[in-house]
Amino acid sequence: MATTVASRSSRAVRPGGRSARVRAAVHGAALELAAEGAAEALTIPTIAQRAGVHPTTVYRRWGTVAELLADVSASRFAGDLVVPDTGDLRADLDRYAAGLAKDLTDPDTLALVRATVGIGGEQGAAVCRSERENQLVAILERDRARGNEPPGIEETTDAILAPLYYRAVFTNFPLDPAWVHGLVERLLADQTSS
Amino acid sequence: MATTVASRSSRAVRPGGRSARVRAAVHGAALELAAEGAAEALTIPTIAQRAGVHPTTVYRRWGTVAELLADVSASRFAGDLVVPDTGDLRADLDRYAAGLAKDLTDPDTLALVRATVGIGGEQGAAVCRSERENQLVAILERDRARGNEPPGIEETTDAILAPLYYRAVFTNFPLDPAWVHGLVERLLADQTSS
Repeated sequence: MATTVASRSSRAVRPGGRSARVRAAVHGAALELAAEGAAEALTIPTIAQRAGVHPTTVYRRWGTVAELLADVSASRFAGDLVVPDTGDLRADLDRYAAGLAKDLTDPDTLALVRATVGIGGEQGAAVCRSERENQLVAILERDRARGNEPPGIEETTDAILAPLYYRAVFTNFPLDPAWVHGLVERLLADQTSS
Repeated sequence: MATTVASRSSRAVRPGGRSARVRAAVHGAALELAAEGAAEALTIPTIAQRAGVHPTTVYRRWGTVAELLADVSASRFAGDLVVPDTGDLRADLDRYAAGLAKDLTDPDTLALVRATVGIGGEQGAAVCRSERENQLVAILERDRARGNEPPGIEETTDAILAPLYYRAVFTNFPLDPAWVHGLVERLLADQTSS
């Protein structure tokens, strides 16, 4: 039994280490190629060549470029997000919107979002937005827990998330702070008047 | 001279006819492949094969898949748009929003928008939205000409265009008529209260 465990463990460590390195190299290559605006170069052979691994390794692990990009986006967009918690809805939404605007202003992130949506379709798009939507739900729920009546998630998505993604992905207009702040103001003005 | 004109004319007719046929076949092939969700198959050799033309023809005419998709999107999104003109801003915006929602609900259009943005980047995205923005500008200008004070183009884009594109491109939520109408209502409610 001890031998089995040991050999299992060593087997697990070696491929694990190599596997993690391959993953990092392939993710890095996909990010680089997307950032170079070379969406046409986002093929498994090209990505594998850039990563210095055999195409078969990439095919076996991810299957398609769409799956690979969804995986890259998932690790890019998950985990590093902190939900603002100032105790005030307006301030939380301001921080949230400014953080998302900063993220979407980064050319590498934007290139990744465009490529993931373009090649990964609806599934890819879901990966790019779901964590951001979860954050928004958490902010609104906290405000409700404080006894307030915040706007609903649909209205908040339409008023803040949608214009930020639309402007970033579809236009070359800057996501300037005054405009970003104005989105929050407009949403909360509606709220007060209704 | 007569001979020259005649031969020019016959030369112009033949390549013109062939050229139009090639364009239609290549556009059709790109649309089909995008609609099949096969963004990875959107390469010039694959498109050329589907269209039954030589890859060199496609390379020579469009250069890149990005350019080709921008051309396909331009002919898809231009020309067939009528600016609603009911004499009333609310009714015009309702018709506009319902028309855009219908367009973005079509799976082929949506696949084309995603592929054009994903592969064509900012330039591709501009092609997918510019005609729609022009329509909106025309609607607002007409209302101003009637002596009213309509919302600005930025606010209208944020309130109507952005949520429609965001929901269509990034989510799988339906663009249902009540929601679409609500976008217009919210924009104009802001307007009245400000």
